[in-house]
Amino acid sequence: MDAQLQKLIDKLDTLDFSDMYENDFLLTWDKSKDDLEAVIAVANALRNLRERNISPRIFDSGLGISIFRDNSTRTRFSFASACNMLGLTVQDLDEKKSQIAHGETVRETATMVSFMADVIGVRDDMYIGEGHKYQKEVIASVDESYKDGILNQKPTLVSLQCDIDHPTQSMADLLYIADQFGGVENLKGKKIAMSWAYSPSYAKPLSVPQAIIGLMTRFGMDVVLAHPEGYDVMPEVEDVARKNAQESGGTFTKTNDMAEAFKGADIVIPKSWAPFVGMEERTKLYAAGDFDGIDALEQKLLEQNKQHMDWVTTPELMATTNNAIYMHPLPADIEGVSCEHGEVTNDVFEAHRVGMYKEASYKPYAIAAMIFLAKCKDPQATLRALDAADKPRLFQEK
Amino acid sequence: MDAQLQKLIDKLDTLDFSDMYENDFLLTWDKSKDDLEAVIAVANALRNLRERNISPRIFDSGLGISIFRDNSTRTRFSFASACNMLGLTVQDLDEKKSQIAHGETVRETATMVSFMADVIGVRDDMYIGEGHKYQKEVIASVDESYKDGILNQKPTLVSLQCDIDHPTQSMADLLYIADQFGGVENLKGKKIAMSWAYSPSYAKPLSVPQAIIGLMTRFGMDVVLAHPEGYDVMPEVEDVARKNAQESGGTFTKTNDMAEAFKGADIVIPKSWAPFVGMEERTKLYAAGDFDGIDALEQKLLEQNKQHMDWVTTPELMATTNNAIYMHPLPADIEGVSCEHGEVTNDVFEAHRVGMYKEASYKPYAIAAMIFLAKCKDPQATLRALDAADKPRLFQEK
Amino acid sequence: MDAQLQKLIDKLDTLDFSDMYENDFLLTWDKSKDDLEAVIAVANALRNLRERNISPRIFDSGLGISIFRDNSTRTRFSFASACNMLGLTVQDLDEKKSQIAHGETVRETATMVSFMADVIGVRDDMYIGEGHKYQKEVIASVDESYKDGILNQKPTLVSLQCDIDHPTQSMADLLYIADQFGGVENLKGKKIAMSWAYSPSYAKPLSVPQAIIGLMTRFGMDVVLAHPEGYDVMPEVEDVARKNAQESGGTFTKTNDMAEAFKGADIVIPKSWAPFVGMEERTKLYAAGDFDGIDALEQKLLEQNKQHMDWVTTPELMATTNNAIYMHPLPADIEGVSCEHGEVTNDVFEAHRVGMYKEASYKPYAIAAMIFLAKCKDPQATLRALDAADKPRLFQEK
Repeated sequence: MDAQLQKLIDKLDTLDFSDMYENDFLLTWDKSKDDLEAVIAVANALRNLRERNISPRIFDSGLGISIFRDNSTRTRFSFASACNMLGLTVQDLDEKKSQIAHGETVRETATMVSFMADVIGVRDDMYIGEGHKYQKEVIASVDESYKDGILNQKPTLVSLQCDIDHPTQSMADLLYIADQFGGVENLKGKKIAMSWAYSPSYAKPLSVPQAIIGLMTRFGMDVVLAHPEGYDVMPEVEDVARKNAQESGGTFTKTNDMAEAFKGADIVIPKSWAPFVGMEERTKLYAAGDFDGIDALEQKLLEQNKQHMDWVTTPELMATTNNAIYMHPLPADIEGVSCEHGEVTNDVFEAHRVGMYKEASYKPYAIAAMIFLAKCKDPQATLRALDAADKPRLFQEK
Repeated sequence: MDAQLQKLIDKLDTLDFSDMYENDFLLTWDKSKDDLEAVIAVANALRNLRERNISPRIFDSGLGISIFRDNSTRTRFSFASACNMLGLTVQDLDEKKSQIAHGETVRETATMVSFMADVIGVRDDMYIGEGHKYQKEVIASVDESYKDGILNQKPTLVSLQCDIDHPTQSMADLLYIADQFGGVENLKGKKIAMSWAYSPSYAKPLSVPQAIIGLMTRFGMDVVLAHPEGYDVMPEVEDVARKNAQESGGTFTKTNDMAEAFKGADIVIPKSWAPFVGMEERTKLYAAGDFDGIDALEQKLLEQNKQHMDWVTTPELMATTNNAIYMHPLPADIEGVSCEHGEVTNDVFEAHRVGMYKEASYKPYAIAAMIFLAKCKDPQATLRALDAADKPRLFQEK
Repeated sequence: MDAQLQKLIDKLDTLDFSDMYENDFLLTWDKSKDDLEAVIAVANALRNLRERNISPRIFDSGLGISIFRDNSTRTRFSFASACNMLGLTVQDLDEKKSQIAHGETVRETATMVSFMADVIGVRDDMYIGEGHKYQKEVIASVDESYKDGILNQKPTLVSLQCDIDHPTQSMADLLYIADQFGGVENLKGKKIAMSWAYSPSYAKPLSVPQAIIGLMTRFGMDVVLAHPEGYDVMPEVEDVARKNAQESGGTFTKTNDMAEAFKGADIVIPKSWAPFVGMEERTKLYAAGDFDGIDALEQKLLEQNKQHMDWVTTPELMATTNNAIYMHPLPADIEGVSCEHGEVTNDVFEAHRVGMYKEASYKPYAIAAMIFLAKCKDPQATLRALDAADKPRLFQEK
């Protein structure tokens, strides 16, 4: 067997991730550290197989349902790629083409689309208090239908982003930095700065910084959350990060000073987000149907952003780091490229472009690993069997 | 071999369904009773295979074309599920994304999308006199192109609902009640009430009640069609029902009294529909481009509906039945859930929810069975071969 | 082995098409004549396999990305069919559903959608000077990402039409006429008239006539380009045609007289297009955001068209040919069917309908052959292996 694959299977043998089987993936902090390490090992194993032109397909047929309540390119393609790699066909639940508006409940729709569904991927990050709740409602619905014998299989829900967490993004990020530092065990003591950055656009999701502080604190890193006053994230997630850091032997600190966050950092993730209190207000206005209020809030928040145009990643700021890896979930607001003033200067972005694209390349594998672990009772044996079968992904006689 | 599968194959051996091969599925009453029983047996056989994690896939590649001339969730997903189960990829002919408006004929479009098409699923139920006609036009087109050597295979058309019949719905319903009563042979003498019910919405398709009276009369059932005066269905389909009943030893009766229909019934299907005469008028207005007239008609029909708000399924009404199974093709207008006044009270709906979801779960299998019977010259041998091959749908080493 | 397949493999053995491997397909005139003949042989070989119910699938999983910057039915389905035949799943990059507008670069998007992409099909024919440029930008992007180790495989770009060429259309046309005349070697000396025709619609793509004159001149044919004064195509492509004709021993001539072009022709392709100068002006107006100017230009060009209503293919005109094959990429503007005055009379169209549909049936195979040649290092050995494996496309026990 390929040495790298063997090593990954050996790693899996040391972990207890039995809870992943027939389970869902919503919040990284609801998973054990072993679970997360299993995702990393399986993602790398699937990548290993695919790079050696061995098909990692485990489904002969089956559907992966996608529900996107917001526009999306990269997450849509990542989910499609993960499903395709494993043999599932994506069927998109386009709410505009459906009859969902006709008074149908979440429970009913979730069941109706799931008769052949092995996976349901849901992205719902628009309104605070809504996305995660909706995902749990979908899970409860299909679980009940499975127990009632309506569904022949239990579909696994993979969160493709909610209002609280963005687990497929943060797990892809973790895969990337684990690769850069030679394994998750080497992340201990590394300083990572999750920093706010100025953007001329509005209401970028909180789930990205929350995902980072909620995940990276699991691995003994020194996680710094930096933002201007008033740009706090959800307090519950800060609590999670604090507790994680204590357990992992790392730290979680906060600052309103970007420079302080960057100083000596090994990794920086500077990215805009909307203030939590603003997003809470927005949800209330939305619930009240006050669209004028929403417009007024948008103007207010854009004005507020403009007071922090100096929160931009420049070569000078990067020079204060410990030769840090610059990361971004993309697309970024690049000065002189997509905007006049933005999150990052073009030279910093260009210097790290290849890295960020590699970062992104892990997302399909992270999603596929979550599905694989939910579907295979014995992932190691299944990986071994796939390797032994040696079925070419691209067949050609040479 | 699995005993249940063996029994289903044995059943097929007793039936003559040779006409199904390389044929289409438009109206249940154009099929022999053996054909319908073959659909039931094959649907159950495919479900049996899938439940035992045996892949029922017969296509290594091939397309299932879907043409939806109306929004749809459950039928769209049912068709996608059926195609996926058998190995076909769905390609949707989205008329908005196409150039069909550019003066292209049905014949041309049907051929152009069918070079790799094994199946074409069409839903076209919006205008009386249009849907079934269009489906026959598509069939004529692809048949001609097949004969001319343009198409290498003859695509099978499966009606996913037309203005006259809704065969995949009624066959799923039949699969469900056959399961509940222990086989179609036990349906003889059972009373089934197809009843109109009040809905605050407009122009629900006639094809649902028509499908029920046109199909259930084949099996010796006592079929009662109930509706307020003026809500008649197509007279041609009533004729079909009458003739069927006579041949099968059942009955077909009509009433304007919901209570009478429910009394002692074994199965009730209360559901709103638009009056046939109204829909005929609407088609004429549409043809004349009289959109003000269409709006006026809508208001008139909604007012007419309001005079029949007492056509609602309540626990009291259910108590008059023979402990009847309540069915609905979904989504239903549930009082206090999706509307103030509707087709059914919430307690009746909740008491039968699991059953209705099971009813819906048969639709993908009904569609897959129609395709399977059109594609396999010897379905029994093919089912046996699939069972013997024992290819896992979800592969995992344990 | 099947005799016809053997013959096609033998033919491939005589050709040098090594440049096709891991390459893209944008302009036919950037390919060697051997490359083009290899596409023809492989397309026919794939058709041979499929017609004998042998699966020509080479991918166990993988994505075919489609990017359509214009509505499309037949090209969309042809690409989907080609991908499906080979085992790829189409994932459409719908720019309306994506975040591309958020300042993202072509380079970034192209990479983000390509992690599992084996093929990218792009149709971008709307603006002169744009489509081909965009396609080259996509290629440069994914090539760089492949070299940087971001992508594990190099996606092949197949042009599904640009502003300059329409290679999958012209190659399908070539497959059709090669079949009609018993092989490309028999096309030498045949007269083919690529003629403008009147259409009541506006701005039909120049890439169709350009594709024809750029390709058919490779095979020693006498290619005549006919159009009213002012309806010239791109001068660069005329130069290509002239050079091709010289090299192949054919001719390339121009006329403003439709009758002259038809006289004695073996093949006629009469079809409307917009004048190049008009399209150049339109691109400038578009770049300047002058939408009133674009509307005025449209009116001017429609008026100009009307002066040439006599450019219509009639039975009388067809009678002057050498019993010519009438071709059209479809849909055509047929007099009395889709318009009052158009490109062709209904009787001429009807007499050649089956042929045109056969012409269209080659497009999926042409696309599949381009992909096959880009992916297989030894296409002959792979075809032989597929034939030997004899895996049924549609499995059934008889």
